[in-house]
Amino acid sequence: MSGYAANLADIYQAAARIAPYSHKTPVMTCATLDRLSGKKLYFKCELFQKTGSFKFRGACNAVMQLPEDVARRGVVTHSSGNHAQALALAAKERGIRAYVVMPTTASPVKANAVREYGGEVIECAPTLKARETVAQTVLDETKGTLIPPYDDPRVIAGQGTIALELLESLPELDAIVSPIGGGGLVSGVALAAKEAKPTLKVFGIEPKGADDAARSKSTGRLIPQTSPNTIADGLLTSLGEFTWPVVRDLVAEILTVSDEEIVSAMRLLWERAKLLVEPSGAVSLAGVLSERFRSFDSLRHVAVILSGGNVNLATLPF
Amino acid sequence: MSGYAANLADIYQAAARIAPYSHKTPVMTCATLDRLSGKKLYFKCELFQKTGSFKFRGACNAVMQLPEDVARRGVVTHSSGNHAQALALAAKERGIRAYVVMPTTASPVKANAVREYGGEVIECAPTLKARETVAQTVLDETKGTLIPPYDDPRVIAGQGTIALELLESLPELDAIVSPIGGGGLVSGVALAAKEAKPTLKVFGIEPKGADDAARSKSTGRLIPQTSPNTIADGLLTSLGEFTWPVVRDLVAEILTVSDEEIVSAMRLLWERAKLLVEPSGAVSLAGVLSERFRSFDSLRHVAVILSGGNVNLATLPF
Repeated sequence: MSGYAANLADIYQAAARIAPYSHKTPVMTCATLDRLSGKKLYFKCELFQKTGSFKFRGACNAVMQLPEDVARRGVVTHSSGNHAQALALAAKERGIRAYVVMPTTASPVKANAVREYGGEVIECAPTLKARETVAQTVLDETKGTLIPPYDDPRVIAGQGTIALELLESLPELDAIVSPIGGGGLVSGVALAAKEAKPTLKVFGIEPKGADDAARSKSTGRLIPQTSPNTIADGLLTSLGEFTWPVVRDLVAEILTVSDEEIVSAMRLLWERAKLLVEPSGAVSLAGVLSERFRSFDSLRHVAVILSGGNVNLATLPF
Repeated sequence: MSGYAANLADIYQAAARIAPYSHKTPVMTCATLDRLSGKKLYFKCELFQKTGSFKFRGACNAVMQLPEDVARRGVVTHSSGNHAQALALAAKERGIRAYVVMPTTASPVKANAVREYGGEVIECAPTLKARETVAQTVLDETKGTLIPPYDDPRVIAGQGTIALELLESLPELDAIVSPIGGGGLVSGVALAAKEAKPTLKVFGIEPKGADDAARSKSTGRLIPQTSPNTIADGLLTSLGEFTWPVVRDLVAEILTVSDEEIVSAMRLLWERAKLLVEPSGAVSLAGVLSERFRSFDSLRHVAVILSGGNVNLATLPF
């Protein structure tokens, strides 16, 4: 697959690069959810990935390939979510500094997690402009390297390793279903899967309250997300210059789900499968349980990516 | 090991008998919990067993070895907890009826789970006497077979299959740590482990508010539990005639933990390991994190049995 952020060879290289630091996450099954979906479902449990989400794969792949003299100056990002923790641990494994610009509104739990992994938290005002300005200042001062949360070929290749693991153990898969926010996860997965097994279909599932990917896909042009409103707080971002072409060309369809459907899917995963997913991580199951997805009769063996499990136990939706 | 409820050969037979119906549950690790405990911990995830707890192993082993003419009359138990669901599914797999006597105070969620697995729920007043009387009436009417929740050689042998799975993948284990209520789990594990690897130590962890096993062990005679009071609602029962001799002779030590320690361990498992255990299932980690257990310097590789994940999301302790 050429002309995109990464090809299958890049993704195999990423898998080898991150193998010493990351988990090959387990695949779980649940008879009750098979019955409810009318499919045979394989849950790819990225909640059990290091730092509790798939984000570690991309961050680790980016950090580990920096040249030694560049790496020594550290890495920088702005994020209030799972990418922040992922980058902090990847930097720790490399033995370098991670500077994470976080809004003052970020949960103290998340800031503490970054610090526990050895990252340095730099607070800023809770606006995108402030985040970018402060991050630029840190970059200027440290001469470090920016590692973006999703719109980056190294990050996308890292996330694609999920598809390699799935196809290795489940060659019979008909489809892979992934949450979609900025598109780093679904892009990596689609780039790996469509080159390794062209007949396989990749679906992105998006909250109705942050449906830029669905609107972009249906109009054929990149429409940025404005004023997102959903419980799936990991999926608020817009597609980017590297992820959009992959979503446009290689993702079969984007399905949207309501917050009620997301909470219901999350509750099913907790109660029936004992899988402690966060709302953004349950979005893929919500899509699989939708009428639209159930209508795809030819799709029998379906991998469902549960992208993360970093839940705030103080504010559960049920 | 002779003179006890089961020996290693019985437990190997149980493993073969239940294999077509049960999961070999995964073993998970967590760097944070290794650091907090000062040990290398291996979490045996019985929350991912069929019906959400280890109880399915024992119930399945008992049901599958009934002679055909006996099985046809069905199986009976009284339980408001995980054994009820386990027996209902085991009976369904065998194609026979399960009659479960449950107190009217049992949670509707649990009664519904039994019905979903095809079991018949018979309500009774919430006293042990009423449960026993109603169960006897059902036994008289159906001529079915009573399958007790723990004090039964077939059930104990089924629970022991956990130790076989652990030692198969982790021959280096120094210790196995298990919650203890009626003692079915810890007895089966001790019978398998002490015969397969005599140097391995088996520990039982008990809530301070239901410490009959600790008191029995320290006095050398079976002391029944009266008025238990703990959040670990799976561990309220007394040791029995089959489990007590094993606890007395083969379990290295019983450690007790407070409800605060149990809730704290449960929270750590949820937040750091993303493992959705119920309070009774977190008791074993609470024991491993105690000062007493940390003082056992020679125990490096420690398996921690997380016995179940059937949590009532409406009444979380945090």
